[in-house]
Amino acid sequence: MNPLGTQHIAEFIDCDKTYLNNERKLKSFLKKGIEDSGLHSVGIVSHKFDPLGVTVIAIISESHIGMHTYPEAGHVSLDVFTCSDPHKHMKLINYLRKALKPKKVRLGYLKRGNLIEFHEPDWIPSVSGYGFEVSYHAEKVLYSKKSKYQMIEIIENEHFGRMLFLDNELQISEYDADIYNAALVDPIRKSNLKIKNAVILGGGDGGVLHELLKIKPRKVTLVDIDPKVIEASTKYLGKISQESFVDKHVEIVYQDALHYIKNNGGFDAVIYDLTMHPEAFSKVPREEFLDNFFGDIYKSMNPGGVITLQCCSQFDAETRELVDSILKKYYKKLSTIRFSSPLSAKNGFSLRRVNKI
Amino acid sequence: MNPLGTQHIAEFIDCDKTYLNNERKLKSFLKKGIEDSGLHSVGIVSHKFDPLGVTVIAIISESHIGMHTYPEAGHVSLDVFTCSDPHKHMKLINYLRKALKPKKVRLGYLKRGNLIEFHEPDWIPSVSGYGFEVSYHAEKVLYSKKSKYQMIEIIENEHFGRMLFLDNELQISEYDADIYNAALVDPIRKSNLKIKNAVILGGGDGGVLHELLKIKPRKVTLVDIDPKVIEASTKYLGKISQESFVDKHVEIVYQDALHYIKNNGGFDAVIYDLTMHPEAFSKVPREEFLDNFFGDIYKSMNPGGVITLQCCSQFDAETRELVDSILKKYYKKLSTIRFSSPLSAKNGFSLRRVNKI
Repeated sequence: MNPLGTQHIAEFIDCDKTYLNNERKLKSFLKKGIEDSGLHSVGIVSHKFDPLGVTVIAIISESHIGMHTYPEAGHVSLDVFTCSDPHKHMKLINYLRKALKPKKVRLGYLKRGNLIEFHEPDWIPSVSGYGFEVSYHAEKVLYSKKSKYQMIEIIENEHFGRMLFLDNELQISEYDADIYNAALVDPIRKSNLKIKNAVILGGGDGGVLHELLKIKPRKVTLVDIDPKVIEASTKYLGKISQESFVDKHVEIVYQDALHYIKNNGGFDAVIYDLTMHPEAFSKVPREEFLDNFFGDIYKSMNPGGVITLQCCSQFDAETRELVDSILKKYYKKLSTIRFSSPLSAKNGFSLRRVNKI
Repeated sequence: MNPLGTQHIAEFIDCDKTYLNNERKLKSFLKKGIEDSGLHSVGIVSHKFDPLGVTVIAIISESHIGMHTYPEAGHVSLDVFTCSDPHKHMKLINYLRKALKPKKVRLGYLKRGNLIEFHEPDWIPSVSGYGFEVSYHAEKVLYSKKSKYQMIEIIENEHFGRMLFLDNELQISEYDADIYNAALVDPIRKSNLKIKNAVILGGGDGGVLHELLKIKPRKVTLVDIDPKVIEASTKYLGKISQESFVDKHVEIVYQDALHYIKNNGGFDAVIYDLTMHPEAFSKVPREEFLDNFFGDIYKSMNPGGVITLQCCSQFDAETRELVDSILKKYYKKLSTIRFSSPLSAKNGFSLRRVNKI
């Protein structure tokens, strides 16, 4: 049973002290706030401590709300735990905020249930399955929207500049985009092929595209399923993509890359900038999925073409071996570039370069 | 005002369902649990939902307790928020655990106040001031004690093996100890000096000591202020220190390294394995502190001796410049080794090697 509910935690710092020791008033604030925010009170109890401090607790038909005041410090601690719409929590918190006038508010929320997950609006917990988790501080949240396909977030971090997250997974940052992009394009650059027709599968942030344009391919098609990623990247990650989305050699196709590659061909260069973990969205077993996908990519390529891809976390030997064995079925020369940059080191990328048979 | 209190969060999973819809019984469990754990009830209210589920809330003289049951799922969510001793929380939680018989319990706690900090017993949040935080999963907690000087924790992580944390800062792991230790010892090894008398300042995990013993110094003194670190490392990090603590060439001195180095000398090799951020424990301005310290180290060394040290996070250019400028006052040849290993890359070590004038 997961999750059972959401619990908002709020700390009101430096409140107006007028009402903080006034049990009757605090009770009426909470009652009014509950009504206004569309929650349903079942009963409210309160207690006035001697000499200072009040606790007011409401049982609501959606769970409970607890409020504790510390008049001497001008502080109020608030808990709103319900199984209903978290927007109602925020409505209630905002109501009380107006009533108690804190100079500063700190907010967090817990997902309750079989797991306990804690979230703070100014931290992005980036996923890892390798015994650790990295959280990035959002000095500013520039973009935060759920598209049809994923949660898209662009933040400004004090150290890494602007960073793009898809479903909490770090995609790229201004700080290390160059290193990542170069690692994906260098194998093509070094092949000295004249690239007439290149395709980037994924890469909606535009960084690899920008790097690829430096070697002057006659045509590049970028295939990304999610227009919102490109829209947000264009608006907020201009430093990474530069003007590449509107470059005259570039065509952008909003389509499932798997579908696209089945129906198109003639590529001299393919950059695979997609996940190696389709388990998240596909019911086809991973090995079969990747085998079919790389088989289709192979068919779409001109003889002598080059494919580059990023695989995988340095901690994920299993996937590296799997992808290795699949690529060997289709391609002759395989080479690996390991690279690390402050951020990708965390993700532990290594890179394979593959020359088509 | 910080922290104001501690809030324990508990999820009881797969409970015995006998009492989960029994309002009277749940109320009496909570009442009895509060008494037994030394907390003081001011009032208890409850509500029975239709058709299933009970909420019981107690106001206690130390804040509040909330309990919600989900009989259909055999689940209970518990909140214990008080300004009193967190041990009492655990007593209460354990009391209810016995009464409600969950098959599994998940626990976390929040520090409340001007900041909200969330802790889970099986995750260690490792500190970073560079716009990100890394948390490591503790598959098993092997050691967790507060010594006179610091919080010492040794955990077992599924990927990195055993890991040592001091005040939440990652010191070393089985996974990457070799890389770190070699980076500190290699400059001495390569100097081809015959080491008669070496000193390690810090390094209580014994890893650097073990590595240094490989070049067969006649004598090594390891100076660490905290006997508990060496005790815990000996017991749980034998893979890292091997038998080096009991090696006949080794002397261990439990002393403040700053004090020790003022009163001892004649060293051919010094390994500085201490912090570059004394702000945490010293009121002397950092520049002055480090300048004095490295000045004293310089005086303690034989002509032609070698000092190696780890400085600093790749994100901490300020400290690197500061230490650089201090070292230049005392030493002639400076060289830097950058190294990265899966974990230290996260911490972003780089290393300086210094030949004495």
